[in-house]
Amino acid sequence: MRKIDLGRTVQAGNDAVAARNRELFARHGVYVLNIIGSPGCGKTSILEETARRLDARFAAVIGDVKTALDAERVRECGVETRAIETGGGCHLNAAQIASAVSDLPLASLDFLLIENVGNLVCPSAFDLGENAKVAVLSVPEGDEKVRKYPALFLRADAVIINKVDLAPYCPYDVERVKEDARRLHPDVRIFEMSAITGEGFAPWFGFLEDVRPSQGG
Amino acid sequence: MRKIDLGRTVQAGNDAVAARNRELFARHGVYVLNIIGSPGCGKTSILEETARRLDARFAAVIGDVKTALDAERVRECGVETRAIETGGGCHLNAAQIASAVSDLPLASLDFLLIENVGNLVCPSAFDLGENAKVAVLSVPEGDEKVRKYPALFLRADAVIINKVDLAPYCPYDVERVKEDARRLHPDVRIFEMSAITGEGFAPWFGFLEDVRPSQGG
Repeated sequence: MRKIDLGRTVQAGNDAVAARNRELFARHGVYVLNIIGSPGCGKTSILEETARRLDARFAAVIGDVKTALDAERVRECGVETRAIETGGGCHLNAAQIASAVSDLPLASLDFLLIENVGNLVCPSAFDLGENAKVAVLSVPEGDEKVRKYPALFLRADAVIINKVDLAPYCPYDVERVKEDARRLHPDVRIFEMSAITGEGFAPWFGFLEDVRPSQGG
Repeated sequence: MRKIDLGRTVQAGNDAVAARNRELFARHGVYVLNIIGSPGCGKTSILEETARRLDARFAAVIGDVKTALDAERVRECGVETRAIETGGGCHLNAAQIASAVSDLPLASLDFLLIENVGNLVCPSAFDLGENAKVAVLSVPEGDEKVRKYPALFLRADAVIINKVDLAPYCPYDVERVKEDARRLHPDVRIFEMSAITGEGFAPWFGFLEDVRPSQGG
């Protein structure tokens, strides 16, 4: 009897599509961020603030289990946006991204921002063809999340600690979080910000400018 | 060729074990709560506060992807506790519960408190044999979570809105949340509380007293 590891089979199929996405994005010179965090950590607010304040050409793909509420918020910032309603699915996969970007003007973009389903567990296992994974944490969630959800933080190129404006009201040891994140991924870039007050975005914008594909050419 | 729906097969296997768990719990007269919410919404703090203040006989099963940090916190309240480290798994299943409770003194308990993995999506689909599902939300997550994660709120018998102490600092329309929850489940019990300040626990304790199995007999 042949035994099939279904998890691995699903993963291999996803990886193949992700590789094709990655090639497509590279060909068009667009840098792709896969943004992952818990429900309510502020992913959409960070996208809104980024789209409003950074002078670059963005499009966005927004995943949610149900509703297109977040996609509408980002669209209102003047960003070309595609919504993926997973209807129960707990993460985005590469095929959903391939389909969502099929009619986006990739060649005229600097950045494609993908907001994954609100979930710290499942999205980390599915490559979408992105250039970088960005993990979003928030102060009221508590400071032990890196230790409890290591799979994401092993893979995340950047970590955003959002809602720093709530630090006076929530016990949170930011140094512990940074230490935990660097233990799992020594080169990780870490940003502390508040998408509500707008503070702390300058280093994040600096990171995006650093990775922005060179224009023209 | 016979086509197999793997999702349904997994679900049916889980349901059979959950039914056996439910029968076991009923035989011993223990009321079981399956507590589900995002990472950092305050599930463990609510369990701690409940175990400390309500005069009842508790045991707890605490699920986490990694670490037994939460289980240790609950154990320190004097509650017999079992930790389930899922090692990547995004929800608890009925077989894990069956194994975790196998050496618990069920007959001498009033309540078994199960804290599921921090995740608003996947845990809602897996029956553990509980008497009631309790969905935990928190004010800083924002007030649209019921609309975005309806599968959980269709099934939850009670909804806790935690961290009401942060309401002055976070925009949150509590009436909208209650309305959304009642639209999906008209009989849902809704509790507003703060596990940090301890406010709002009396109605929650009232609910637990109402469902508590009669003693003796």
